[in-house]
Parts: sequence; structure tokens; C-alpha cells
Amino acid sequence: MMRRWKLLKSAIVCLLLCGVYFVFSLWTRCDVNKKDDNFFRDENRQIDGELHYHNRGAQSFNMVEKMSQEKGPVKYQEIECVINGEYSVQGRREENEVYFPFSFLQKYFEVYGKIEDYDGYERFEWQHSYSKVFPPKEKYSPDGVFMSFEHYNVEVRDRVKCISGMEAVPLSTQWGPQGYFYPIQIAQYGLSHYSKYLRDGKPDVVILEDGEEEDVSDWTVPDRKSQMDIIRDGTLDTNVIEFKTSDSLKSRGIVMSLDEEAGYIFNVQMKFITNGSISVTLETNNGDSMRIHYVQSTTLMMFHGREIFYGLGDRRKKWSRITRDLIIDLQKGLALKYGKSKRNQLKSDFVKLVSVCVRGHGYIDNVTLSSSSHLDQFYDAADWLVRHQDSRGGWPIMVKRRLVPEVLDLPPGWYSAMAQGQAISLLIRAYLMTKDHKYLDAALDATKLYEISSEQGGVLAKFAGVYDWYEEYPTTPSSFVLNGFIFSLIGLYDLTQVAPSDKAEPAERLYNAGIQSLKSMLLLFDTGSGTIYDLRHFTLGMAPNLARWDYHTTHINQLLLLATIESDPIFRTTADRWVGYMKGHRAAHN
Amino acid sequence: MMRRWKLLKSAIVCLLLCGVYFVFSLWTRCDVNKKDDNFFRDENRQIDGELHYHNRGAQSFNMVEKMSQEKGPVKYQEIECVINGEYSVQGRREENEVYFPFSFLQKYFEVYGKIEDYDGYERFEWQHSYSKVFPPKEKYSPDGVFMSFEHYNVEVRDRVKCISGMEAVPLSTQWGPQGYFYPIQIAQYGLSHYSKYLRDGKPDVVILEDGEEEDVSDWTVPDRKSQMDIIRDGTLDTNVIEFKTSDSLKSRGIVMSLDEEAGYIFNVQMKFITNGSISVTLETNNGDSMRIHYVQSTTLMMFHGREIFYGLGDRRKKWSRITRDLIIDLQKGLALKYGKSKRNQLKSDFVKLVSVCVRGHGYIDNVTLSSSSHLDQFYDAADWLVRHQDSRGGWPIMVKRRLVPEVLDLPPGWYSAMAQGQAISLLIRAYLMTKDHKYLDAALDATKLYEISSEQGGVLAKFAGVYDWYEEYPTTPSSFVLNGFIFSLIGLYDLTQVAPSDKAEPAERLYNAGIQSLKSMLLLFDTGSGTIYDLRHFTLGMAPNLARWDYHTTHINQLLLLATIESDPIFRTTADRWVGYMKGHRAAHN
Repeated sequence: MMRRWKLLKSAIVCLLLCGVYFVFSLWTRCDVNKKDDNFFRDENRQIDGELHYHNRGAQSFNMVEKMSQEKGPVKYQEIECVINGEYSVQGRREENEVYFPFSFLQKYFEVYGKIEDYDGYERFEWQHSYSKVFPPKEKYSPDGVFMSFEHYNVEVRDRVKCISGMEAVPLSTQWGPQGYFYPIQIAQYGLSHYSKYLRDGKPDVVILEDGEEEDVSDWTVPDRKSQMDIIRDGTLDTNVIEFKTSDSLKSRGIVMSLDEEAGYIFNVQMKFITNGSISVTLETNNGDSMRIHYVQSTTLMMFHGREIFYGLGDRRKKWSRITRDLIIDLQKGLALKYGKSKRNQLKSDFVKLVSVCVRGHGYIDNVTLSSSSHLDQFYDAADWLVRHQDSRGGWPIMVKRRLVPEVLDLPPGWYSAMAQGQAISLLIRAYLMTKDHKYLDAALDATKLYEISSEQGGVLAKFAGVYDWYEEYPTTPSSFVLNGFIFSLIGLYDLTQVAPSDKAEPAERLYNAGIQSLKSMLLLFDTGSGTIYDLRHFTLGMAPNLARWDYHTTHINQLLLLATIESDPIFRTTADRWVGYMKGHRAAHN
Repeated sequence: MMRRWKLLKSAIVCLLLCGVYFVFSLWTRCDVNKKDDNFFRDENRQIDGELHYHNRGAQSFNMVEKMSQEKGPVKYQEIECVINGEYSVQGRREENEVYFPFSFLQKYFEVYGKIEDYDGYERFEWQHSYSKVFPPKEKYSPDGVFMSFEHYNVEVRDRVKCISGMEAVPLSTQWGPQGYFYPIQIAQYGLSHYSKYLRDGKPDVVILEDGEEEDVSDWTVPDRKSQMDIIRDGTLDTNVIEFKTSDSLKSRGIVMSLDEEAGYIFNVQMKFITNGSISVTLETNNGDSMRIHYVQSTTLMMFHGREIFYGLGDRRKKWSRITRDLIIDLQKGLALKYGKSKRNQLKSDFVKLVSVCVRGHGYIDNVTLSSSSHLDQFYDAADWLVRHQDSRGGWPIMVKRRLVPEVLDLPPGWYSAMAQGQAISLLIRAYLMTKDHKYLDAALDATKLYEISSEQGGVLAKFAGVYDWYEEYPTTPSSFVLNGFIFSLIGLYDLTQVAPSDKAEPAERLYNAGIQSLKSMLLLFDTGSGTIYDLRHFTLGMAPNLARWDYHTTHINQLLLLATIESDPIFRTTADRWVGYMKGHRAAHN
């Protein structure tokens, strides 16, 4: 008898709910119409908010209808949707509205989105593009932040094999696994650290040793054949540490034990008499300890046991500095041994520096650990450019570039207008910081290749025989890559602002011709819903090479930069429209 | 007690259903995954077919869960979807799949679709574009069908006010309500009827009167002052009908009663001595009868009472023919009185011809009603072009064309390379049919304006100062409309194939230069997902003017035509890719 009563009660609950839901379902109908009219109005959210609840009600109500086998409208059903007569997907039909699964829309339209949870309130966030625009905060200036490069982090990119110990700049593997020095990447490395320096200001620096305390008791000398002293150095005119012990990596070395978490940028000045090395021991947050050896070798890098080796080349005869990002040195070492996947698990795994160790016979000074060392990295890049500029004023790129295999190939040794331009932007900043003319002279020399046609080994192309274009990839026929051309112009602009009047003429002429070409040709890259990366479709008669969203945003960032230094409204208006494309807005059709 | 039992039973039914649906819901899960993997495979339909049933089951099951207030996953629910952070739409969520309403997708992506019913099986048909490509059936030839013009029906377009009784060609109101003769429209009118003639062959013709039966008893003479006789005409060298009665439209006239449904193209040859007219009475399928008067007046058209009037101009002194599409004459008349909407209700309302009536003093012969009269309409267009070609070999367009108001305006009197080209294509066909040199000479003269720059009042533009382009709209700066340019080239091609070698040189030179420009510039119109109508974005630095789908298909039809006469694969491969765009396929991005 009791059991019956339970069932009876639950049945009654059923019927009551039906009644309530029936009222809801009536409300719903009018709301649905309201919604349709207001489709793009702001009240939408609120209205839809209400609907949320009502429709659920209506839903359940109809399901009950079905279950109780009554005839009546089923508001929800599956429906086959034939897509352009090519294939089918299953949609959901409610009266005259048909719903399409995002898994299909994502493939069909290449849109993005996912369900986000806000403290239990879940909503779907639809993104037309995955990329982000950084509008400039002020008028562009040759001594300011470079575009949005303060957000760049060149060295963490997978295509950067490591920061060379000998050259102190990134080594690229983008187009050749063997690795090569890519002037564009090196300039961007310098420009990003310069921009971060302007953004972040002075770093926190912990001095581990500078010899000024005239006390080496922090250091543990392994045996009586080894020794460590403080001496006065004539060149540096400061106290420095002289150390003398076995140079064998098997030996214990002279060790300073630490427990330092203040930063991950390791700086040291050194001058060796014999072979020798400097090693650091890191603790990682899974409790392991890893050792990195900086050795006088021409080997780029090596992984052996649990130890990573970076070659510094010959560090004898004169003082030199190394600035090492211990996180990057660790990650690139792990990537070398385990590949990306494992490396990524271990990412930013560095916790603290637990020891520094020197071997061989030599001197060290200003051993520091800091939160950043952007200026050092900036100068490392600028100095590399000065050291490696050739007699034509360029930085030949020693890798084969296959823009369109068999059709647009560049054999090793090609120059890039983008490399020239980005190098100039970096060198000009180094000149303005130091007033050292070696930087300015290198920047001035870097314009010479802008005057030489691609066929002649330069970077100058002509569109339709009339418009000058400086080629990121000086192919024949020309490829007219937009973003590289604009970077080449920004470099020229920097030079026109800084070069003494008697030396500014080539840069001014080249910049004016280039900006004129850009104004004339810019819209050829506009598809009405995005942008095109280059004009290979025009020169080769093939499909346009559409720019993926991060190149599209680079185009926009570049136009917004130019809008701050050029009066022609075309840059601003075009950039604004291109921003709209990222939200699915399209140019009108006739 | 009995009531309790009922409730009890229904509750049990509930629980049983739950059990069954639970099993279904398990099946569903794996099927859903299967579905996702096979997304673009054909088995889909079948798999989805099964799902249909299962999901419904799962659905109801969960609703019961909800109703009975148990905790548990709700497979179907509404979810707010935020679109690019700009606004929200309500989606539908099932586990991790989110569904979007087509009413939103349609607005956002401009796609098309609707639910179609196949004998009770309803499915949704998604269309990326609304337009259709007509691949050529054979190699293009100057005496063959013109592109896909056999599908054109120029005269029914709303922008055609009517077929002029004096000029026997359409009068356009596209860019001016006053109406003007638009050579492009007239050439297309002729080319479409020529193409239909080739497709349909000889029409069914009913001879209503040709005087050969030497019997006028079919005609009712109203009074003894009126008369009708058969006489021999020296000019035509056949029997013709002479009629003499009042020329007043109030008078009864001489009437032949009919009950003729064989066609709707009314043909008659006439020569008037005095003022006079020819009238027809039509029966419409709502039982009404309408009268159309063809009068010797210069008034284009008029509607009075239930009667429509078309002015034929002066038809005295010499024999002339009129060919009237009675459906069109009726519709345009109704449109004049009632506007489009009412006209559309009455569309193709003509049922039968119930009488022909002549007034005044004159002669008629070969009075016929036929299913079509394409050749007559073709010659009406060709002869208009011969009559109206000016001393520069062109057909000036006497309406202001505002391509981009205030920026690209053409004052009345402009020439169009498209008009010149389409006219040549028509005139060449008339020449090949008749061997009458007036047509060939007009076609040869029509090339002269191709040589004259837009600034000089011609139609020749240069892209970037190097590529010759014949302008549909010879604006300054140039607009480079693609489809008009290609039509201008097809005309030149027709001429090169037919003109005697001593006269072919200009056409050959102009065609070769133009086709070279087209090959070089074609890809500039390719957005990777559609095409651009013109290059105003390049010349004016504004947003690209995207081609709507029917212009896109015109581009494709034109390239497919060129692919049959030009060896360069660019036309075929580009057309194939552009066909893909109509199904949502896109060019790759980098």
C-alpha cells in the first residue's frame, strides 16, 4: 500500500510540472519572435537570458507530450542537411529554425570557439580569428618600442635551436635542420629585448661575486693545488677573481653554493688563461637538479647524462661577457634530448640556482643573477650584425629558401630587404643608446642592397615595371611579400630620422619611393574578408596565398604604425577595415 | 481506488520507457563519436539516419531525469553564444557539441538554404551561392550560341520598360527612370534571341492572313463606307490585304475574330496610306479581355481604361514589319499601370488571341501568331545598331552613370567597350546569316574606340601604365571592370575570325593586347573565396567591390568560353577554382 502511494505522488508531481511548463511554452513563442527581430541589438543578451529558462521548460513539456504518446508538435528533431549537394551533416530542427553543429562550421568556415566556464555559468565564445591586434600607444619613434615587439619572445620559438654561446644570438632551424644564423630573427631578438627594456625598466640584479668584498670564503676550493684570489685588473680597473684549478670537467672545480631564486638570467665576465669552463647547477621544481656547462669549445650544444653543454669558443686573451637565460638554456637542452613534447612538459621548470663552478685558470668578475638582462641581449644582437655585415652592406642568408618549390627558390646566400630593414631599426637604436658610430655606419651601408635589383643579387623589384618594391624574398619572378616590405620601409624611416643630413639622401629617396608604392598597391592585398600574404597569384597566375590570421594582424599592426608617421588616411582606414575582418565583417558586394 | 490504479499504471509506463531509452542513450554515445570521425565520409547519411532515432530516445530519457528532479547530465540545453565579443545568439548544446541557428549563420556568412520536402521526407539544403554555371557545350564560334545567353531573357527584366514600337528594341530604365536605349541591353537582347533560335529551331507559326486564299470573309466590315480587298502588291510581289475604314480608335474597325492559342508572338507587315492602327484583343486566364493598340504615334506607350497603346511611329509610304511579344506587351502595360507587384501577380497571364482589328487606310500582309520569332527580334537589334552607330563607330549612352558617386561619374554620352564588343558579336552573327556587308562594316568601325583613351572620350585604359584594358565604364581614374572587359574581347575575337585579312589587323592587335592583359591581371580579381567586380580598390584605395554570385558566375562562364579558344591553361584552372568557391572551398592560407 505504501509503495502505491509513492508512485501516486510522483505521478502527481509529473502532472503539476506539465501544467507549469505549458504556461512557460506559451511565453516562449512570443519571446522567440522578439529575439529574431532584435537579432543584432544589445538587449539580446537579456532577452536571450530569459529565453534560456523558458525554452528549457517548453522543451521538457514537449518531451512529456511525446512520452504520453499524444499527437502534437515535436519542437525538436534531427534533420539531414545537405551541404552544397556534396555531403550531409545532421542538424537539429525546432519548428522552422535549423541548427548546425559547430564541429561542422569550424571545418567549413575555419572559425574558432569553445565553451568557457564563468563560475559555473557556461557560455560558448565564438571567435572569427585567433589573433590579436596591438594598437600603438604613441607616435612611432626610432628610439621607441618597435611596433608590438615587446610581446615577442623570439628565443622560446621551437624554430630557435638555442642561443649560441659563441655568437650570443639565436640559431634558426626554420628552413634547415642544420641550423643557421637568420639576420631577421637576430634583429627581432634584439628589437624585442630593446622594447621589453623600455617597457620593464631596470631589472632586479643579485650580485653573486664581484670581488669587491675582498673575501672568497663563499667559494669552496677542492684541494691545495687549486686556489682562488682577489686581484686588481688593469683593463677593467676593478677587483676581479683569479681562479686556478684543473680544467677537467671530471674535477670538482671551485664551487660557490647558492640558494638563489631572484632571477634566471646569468651574467658573468671572464678571461681565461688556459682551457676552462663555468658551470651552473639548477634545481627544477620536480626536485631534480640539472647542470649546464659553458665550455671553451666550438660545439654549439650537447646533452650528456643529466648535463647540458654550450660552447663559448675561445675565451682567452681578453675579457668577454656571457648573458645566459638559464630557462632557455635548460629548455633548449631538454628539447635537444627529448624533443618538443617532453620539453613542453618541463617548460619554465627552473626554480633556483644552487651553485656556480669554475674550472681551469682564469679570471671572472660581475657574476650576477637577474630578473632580466634585455639591454645585454639587445647589444648581443646589434654587435652580431656589425660583426657579420658583408662588403655589400648585407647579411647573406646561408640557407635555401623554397617559397614555391621549383618555381620560386632562393639558393643559399640570398639577401632580404626585411633583414636589412629590421637590422637598420636595431642598429639605429643601438646608435642612439651608445652614440657609437659603428652602429650608424652599418645602418647606412645596409641601404645599398635596396638599390640593386633582385636579378643582380639585390632586393629591388618593380611591380608592373613601375612601382619599387623591396623584397623579403628577392625571387624571380617577384613575390611582393607585404609584411617584409613594410618592415624594410620602417628601417628606412628610422634612418631618415637619425642620419646626418649629408648622409640621409639614399634612405629618404628609397623610403619615399617605397611608401608611394605601398599606398598604390596596398589594396591589392585586400580580399574583402582578409588579406593576402604576397602577390604570387599575380606573378605566377596561381591561387592567392592568403595570410593566416597572425600575418593579417601583423599587416594591421604595421599599418597602424605607419598611420602615426604618415598623413595619408589610407593606412588608418584600411587598418580599421582589416580589424573588422577579424570579427567576420566583410566588404560589400555589388 | 480506481483513480489511484490509473495513476499507478501511467507511472509504471513512465519507468519502463526510461529503461528502454537508457539503453538507446548508451548506443548513441559511441555513434556520436563514430559520426565525428567520419564527418566527410558518405556513410554519414546512414549513420546519422540511425542516430536520428537514438538521440530522440536519449532526449526524452534525460527530460524524464530532469522532471523527476534527479541529478544527472542533461544532453540538450540552451547555451549563450557570444559572437566575437560583439553580441549573443542562443545555441543548443548536446554534451560537447554546440549547435547554431541558421537564421544567424545566414546573416553572418551570407549563405543560403531552406527545408525541401521530398514526398514527406524533409531535408535542409544548404547553398553557399545562389547562382549557376553553364559550361560551354562546344568550342566557342562567332556563328554559335553566345556564351550562356540562351538562358537570358532580357525583355522580362524589370529594368526594361518595354519593347519600343518605333525602334523594336528594349528601352532601359536601369540608371534613369526616363528610359534610354542602352546598346549593351539591345545587343544582349539580340544575342539571346539568336542563341535561342539556334537552340529551339523553327517556331510553330499560324498564318492568320496572307491574302493568298483570295477570301476576306474572315473579316467583319463594320459599315458600307468601310471595305477590304485582296490586291497584288508590286513591291512584295504577293497578294496583300487593302483595308479602308475610319482611323478613329472609337470606330469599330475591320475585325477578324479568332480563338488562337498557338503562340504569343504577333507578326504583321503593314503599309499605311493614312493614319491608322492595328489592334489585338487578348483573353487572360482570369477571363478578362485586354486590348493592345499599335498606333502610328511617337508616344512610347500608354495605358487607358483597359487598353494599352504602343506607338509605332509613322508607318506610311513603305512596307514595314512589327514583331510583338504579346505577353511582354501585356505585362509591361500592366506594370505601367499597376507597378511591379500587381504585374507579377498577372505574370504570363496571356491565354489566347481573340481578335485582330485594323483601322484607317492601308495594307497588311503575313499576319501570323507564332510560338517564337527569335530571328526577327535578332535582326531588330542588329538593325538598330546599324541605324544608330555614330561617326566614331560607337553607340553613345545618353544617361549619367554614377559608378562611385562624386568620384567615378560618367556624364551622358559615354561609350562602353562592353557595348562595342557585344555589338560586334551581334553584328558579326547578322553578317554571317545575311552576308550583308552593312553589318560587317559596322562591326569593323566599332573597334575604333578601343584605340582611344578614356580621357580622349574612348574606352582604352592602361593598368599601371603598361597593360591595355578596354573599359566597360571609361572612368578617370580607371575602374577595370572584369566582365565588361572580357565581353569586349569576345567581340574582337568574333571579328578576327570573320573579317577579311586586309581588314582584320586592328581587331587582331587589340585582341592580342587585351588577352595578354587579361592573363597578367586575371588573378588580381581572385579573393581566394570569390571574385572582385572591378579594381576600384586599387585605383581609389577603397574597399574592394566584391562581385555578387551572379557576377562571379558570369566571370566563370567567360573564362570557360575563353578556355575553348585560348591555349593558356590559366583560364581553365582559374575557372575550376572559382567554381569551387561557389561550394565554400577556399584558397589555402599560409
